[in-house]
Amino acid sequence: MASTNLSFKCKDEHLAWLATQAILPAGFRVGSTRFDFAPVEVPKPAAMNLTLIALDKATPDFAAMFTRNAFPGAPVILGRRRLDQATLGAVVVNNKISNVCAPGGVAAAERVCAGVASVLGLTASQVVPSSTGVIGWQIPVDAMLAAIPAAAQRLGRATLLDAAQAIMTTDLYPKVRRASVGDGSIVGIAKGAGMIEPNLATMLVYLLTDLAVPRATLRRLLPAAVATSFNSISIDSDTSTSDTVLLLSSGRIACPDEAAFAQALGSVCRDLAEDVVRNGEGVRHVMRVQVQSAPDETIARSLAKAVVNAPLFKCAIAGNDPNVGRIIQAVGKHIGAEALALDVSKMRIVLGGHTIFESGCFRLDPAAEQALTAHLKTAELYSSAVPINGVFKPTVDFPPHEHCVELDIDLGAGGASATVFGADLTHEYVSENADYRS
Amino acid sequence: MASTNLSFKCKDEHLAWLATQAILPAGFRVGSTRFDFAPVEVPKPAAMNLTLIALDKATPDFAAMFTRNAFPGAPVILGRRRLDQATLGAVVVNNKISNVCAPGGVAAAERVCAGVASVLGLTASQVVPSSTGVIGWQIPVDAMLAAIPAAAQRLGRATLLDAAQAIMTTDLYPKVRRASVGDGSIVGIAKGAGMIEPNLATMLVYLLTDLAVPRATLRRLLPAAVATSFNSISIDSDTSTSDTVLLLSSGRIACPDEAAFAQALGSVCRDLAEDVVRNGEGVRHVMRVQVQSAPDETIARSLAKAVVNAPLFKCAIAGNDPNVGRIIQAVGKHIGAEALALDVSKMRIVLGGHTIFESGCFRLDPAAEQALTAHLKTAELYSSAVPINGVFKPTVDFPPHEHCVELDIDLGAGGASATVFGADLTHEYVSENADYRS
Repeated sequence: MASTNLSFKCKDEHLAWLATQAILPAGFRVGSTRFDFAPVEVPKPAAMNLTLIALDKATPDFAAMFTRNAFPGAPVILGRRRLDQATLGAVVVNNKISNVCAPGGVAAAERVCAGVASVLGLTASQVVPSSTGVIGWQIPVDAMLAAIPAAAQRLGRATLLDAAQAIMTTDLYPKVRRASVGDGSIVGIAKGAGMIEPNLATMLVYLLTDLAVPRATLRRLLPAAVATSFNSISIDSDTSTSDTVLLLSSGRIACPDEAAFAQALGSVCRDLAEDVVRNGEGVRHVMRVQVQSAPDETIARSLAKAVVNAPLFKCAIAGNDPNVGRIIQAVGKHIGAEALALDVSKMRIVLGGHTIFESGCFRLDPAAEQALTAHLKTAELYSSAVPINGVFKPTVDFPPHEHCVELDIDLGAGGASATVFGADLTHEYVSENADYRS
Repeated sequence: MASTNLSFKCKDEHLAWLATQAILPAGFRVGSTRFDFAPVEVPKPAAMNLTLIALDKATPDFAAMFTRNAFPGAPVILGRRRLDQATLGAVVVNNKISNVCAPGGVAAAERVCAGVASVLGLTASQVVPSSTGVIGWQIPVDAMLAAIPAAAQRLGRATLLDAAQAIMTTDLYPKVRRASVGDGSIVGIAKGAGMIEPNLATMLVYLLTDLAVPRATLRRLLPAAVATSFNSISIDSDTSTSDTVLLLSSGRIACPDEAAFAQALGSVCRDLAEDVVRNGEGVRHVMRVQVQSAPDETIARSLAKAVVNAPLFKCAIAGNDPNVGRIIQAVGKHIGAEALALDVSKMRIVLGGHTIFESGCFRLDPAAEQALTAHLKTAELYSSAVPINGVFKPTVDFPPHEHCVELDIDLGAGGASATVFGADLTHEYVSENADYRS
């Protein structure tokens, strides 16, 4: 039962596959409910989903990472404090309002945690709050407290799919990924397309495992998994005030092998991260940029991010236009601005398998241009069409395919590498973020 | 006579005003010509403008600044070498092809300089080459050499307006600004909207003065003027491989006052820089972001740039949507990523004269939202409309007005300040850079 009645454009076969991914690990229950409320800031009614993730037994084994934005939301402020708690018992998530820089935001989040705690037999400090939505608005605490019993009643052991839907906002489809280790599993859900209504940028990720892995190990393994997954994607270069990745172990099944767990954790995180990009706001091409032979991984990752965030290159990709001069522009801007000591004559750039630049010069001719255009068209998720109502929207069920624009940059300057996923810049992105409230 | 037959959408009264700005200082002649050529890389015919700026007498008094991009164009590579020359006698500018990372690019630019030199009685090293256009393509040297005599024949003393048009690409109107000091003047022209066809990002600025100011002084004053003008704007955060600012003095009129000259130079540069933003690709709102009470000017300027370059905020402005949470997101991302030691509770943010954020909290209500929306609408250059052919284009003659979106950020952390001009992110920008070649 989808408790939240959200609609999304997802292929039937993908939804069936998601159901197999979403089987809940042992020791957890999840439930969601939907309710109406009236925002203080804007005089119009709204609806919100409230989701609970509960452990059968409060666990000492958890890890979390939060946004580096200097204006963290109240849930992030409280989440950081929760890291010092002996045990955690539940997570409460709302959409619509992110509770960032709103008057009394931290106290409001604490009241919601206390409400959840009293229903589940916990203390408020054992509950992690999580919010995504409009920045600046106040969460409707009384309406949320009234909704908690309904969500608690729906707590079930079967699937995370309802929760993956309930935390969605402008997401195109639910994002669920799993990996098995021995008899146990790691299952993750993610929310994040950019924005809800036209007002927020948030990524929320919940990773649940029944494998018994101690807190210290979880906290060592999570940053490594996040570095090569969620910290290696960019849809629009904007860093949310609410980004949260939370990893909870119920400890119900013995973990046979730490290395296997680390690998499975990394795989779930990377798959979810790519899902977030593939369903990102207005995304019509996913880009995979791989930087190789770099002096170190930081240089490799920041250079790859500079390329996926360069507006002119993003626009060219949107138009299936192999405008490779814009790659050089982005790479050269970054190297120049950061004063990196790189010999650009050793650089080699390959797009869609075709070498387009080496020894300091482009290798361009009409045949290469044709091959590159074909590569970009293969990676296009759907064609853009001028809408009758002026608002550009996706025209297909997601995800239509798993192709990427594949760009490889070899710096010829060392042994480090990094892979970053990014997206094009489209009319659909502008519509999502400019056209709704004007 | 407009020698180049370029068309642009400029208000008649603005064009008349430009003519008064464009009166050439003493000691210079300018001329342009247009010719056809066939690019090597793409099998279709194209047309190019070639422009000459000649000094009556080669001058030792010049200064120049170039892009920090690590892949500078061949003209930038040569331009840097020309800084060491005893005197300069001419500048040759072409549009269409920027001569960046093209096979044999530097030698090709030298051949063009030699061609100009032989017609004007100079040596090649007294000629500065300048190119703007597609990155990666080769300039058509033979066709350019053949065009030089026609451009030389058109050299005239009356106006810079023809040259300001001939260097245009996707620019909406010619950009010319002047300031007087005593009996002399400084006149500047700029090219730069972003791109030509859908392929390049280049800003070219030529500042001509008849005031006698020695080389060492010019080279001291130019960086200061550029810091608060061209280095304080961003249309799309992409740094060109060809950016060039060149200042030439014919030395014909005694300069009465160095401070007055510095002020006039700064004023011409700031006016041209704002012109570049106001006519930028797809720009429908110009933003003026002022950061005050900062620990130092570098922090103030980089924070202001972070705000004008934040895609979500740019989209909100495009939609006349006072989505102020996105300002906090952009400010907080920058402070967090740069690990700046700022107390965000001391920050005060004012949009369109309305205080929207102080003491760590937003001040939002329906009345404030209405006032902010009205401010954004006043600053809108023109309304966007869904085009029949799918390509969004400006619908007015430029510049329709001089209003800006005015954002003031007070850090409460020192005495430094900086002002940056930026632009919104619109369907027109995406059309300009994605829709042409797809």
